[in-house]
Amino acid sequence: MAKLIECVPNFSEGRDPAVIEALAAVVRGGDGVKLLDAAPEINHNRTVVTCVGSPEGVEETAFRLAARAAELIDMSRHHGEHPRMGAMDVCPFIPIRDVAMAECVDIAKRVGRRIGEELGIPVYLYEEAASAPARRNLADIRKGQYEGFFEKIRRPEWAPDFGPAVMNVKSGCTVVGARFALVAYNVNLGTDNIAVANAIARHVRNLSGGLRFVKAMGVQLADRNQVQVSMNLVNYEKTAIYRAHEMIKMEAQRYGVSVVGSEIVGLVPLAALVNSLEYYLQLENFRPDQVLENRLSE
Amino acid sequence: MAKLIECVPNFSEGRDPAVIEALAAVVRGGDGVKLLDAAPEINHNRTVVTCVGSPEGVEETAFRLAARAAELIDMSRHHGEHPRMGAMDVCPFIPIRDVAMAECVDIAKRVGRRIGEELGIPVYLYEEAASAPARRNLADIRKGQYEGFFEKIRRPEWAPDFGPAVMNVKSGCTVVGARFALVAYNVNLGTDNIAVANAIARHVRNLSGGLRFVKAMGVQLADRNQVQVSMNLVNYEKTAIYRAHEMIKMEAQRYGVSVVGSEIVGLVPLAALVNSLEYYLQLENFRPDQVLENRLSE
Repeated sequence: MAKLIECVPNFSEGRDPAVIEALAAVVRGGDGVKLLDAAPEINHNRTVVTCVGSPEGVEETAFRLAARAAELIDMSRHHGEHPRMGAMDVCPFIPIRDVAMAECVDIAKRVGRRIGEELGIPVYLYEEAASAPARRNLADIRKGQYEGFFEKIRRPEWAPDFGPAVMNVKSGCTVVGARFALVAYNVNLGTDNIAVANAIARHVRNLSGGLRFVKAMGVQLADRNQVQVSMNLVNYEKTAIYRAHEMIKMEAQRYGVSVVGSEIVGLVPLAALVNSLEYYLQLENFRPDQVLENRLSE
Repeated sequence: MAKLIECVPNFSEGRDPAVIEALAAVVRGGDGVKLLDAAPEINHNRTVVTCVGSPEGVEETAFRLAARAAELIDMSRHHGEHPRMGAMDVCPFIPIRDVAMAECVDIAKRVGRRIGEELGIPVYLYEEAASAPARRNLADIRKGQYEGFFEKIRRPEWAPDFGPAVMNVKSGCTVVGARFALVAYNVNLGTDNIAVANAIARHVRNLSGGLRFVKAMGVQLADRNQVQVSMNLVNYEKTAIYRAHEMIKMEAQRYGVSVVGSEIVGLVPLAALVNSLEYYLQLENFRPDQVLENRLSE
């Protein structure tokens, strides 16, 4: 199978259709890369671009997107509800098929270096590409946002990984990194008691002693008279969908409550589905290239 | 999602690489169609070509393959162990994604008509495209093979659906039709007692009172000291993989035997995996276009 990497850069412009179209056009014009989505958010004044392709394709496209965003977006005039610090605010590379995380980290570092050196924009590496534990978490890096970074960037502990150690007034600064694909998975319970969903969320999530790569919280589904354990699975290879599902079923028994349904929200890599089906069917030696549709994307 | 149809024509030539390559080249040169496999079998003197594409793409490609086979293959000189009656021996169209069976039946009829009228080759329609119940089964149609068809084709009940009612000496005759994708699924048992596998195979298969779209038999796996229930699931939409799996587990309990593993052999449509995972995870409202890789084959 051909290698496949997803790239999901976020841009600080969600209102001007011409800018959004210009960014989408960069992806459409790229070799070995396909645009899956360009979703503007008006209140956030922010657009999330989703593309996927070969390692070479996403690497080159990500840099060109950063360059185009630097031309078209002026951070000194940007307002929006979502925290942000740069024109291309954040750009993660995500292994999807036949790619090691280390390769995505290398790409993130090369793209980060080019953004720093060729565009003169300060760059921070995050998540799996982070240069220090304090820089793994995006929210920690972005704290203070664009406005606060004119001061923050001068502090030695927040010297950028690449590029100038002073803010770029027009483009701000950019966070580039590598992370696992996130699976948004929700499990619905046959009760309207939010306390039960909250308790199960606590049992299943890493924060309070549960599964290592699960974030979870209880949510009321008023229109269904049900509650939900809403989860983010941040590493589906190590904490698979089936494990979260079966653990919730097990915990729910204690409250005499049953699992009545579940949902996967948004995009999911085939591998995240296959590794759960392998568990339930006790599948041996299944190869992703046995999936007919997967053969078409080579 | 874009419509997707699989086409798996079988050709009566498995030894001459030039002919096999010429047939593969027809698919490679087609619009909206992709060659997945061209597997020659020397003893059978037969090649199975697997391709997939848009309805228009597979329709045109299938006809061109029939025409090229008629040029290159001389049935009057063909020998091989596999039953056969024509140069393009059989050509099924298989719905894979967002395509109704009725559309595949229509394509089979149009391609069959062209092969009959433009190439002068007698054509029989089979499976879902069959013109009568006695013509559904490929083995029933093909009985007598190429050699026997010079006489068989003259009988009123075996008049071809399209084309001349006399044999084409060079090209024989051709069977065209539409069928569901077949899933080859085997379940391994924690015993070396073949009687247990045979008994469970009888319980689970349609022939002896089991599931409607399951064919099954017991198989000894000498190198593993295990036995296997080897199945063909001939309509995974109506008899899903999970149902066969869970029924075998249930039946195996009676013999104090456990399911120790399973395997899917060869290609499988994504939908056949997804509908089993939906069962186990109790998934609601899952759409195939949520699978990232599936978006790349649009």
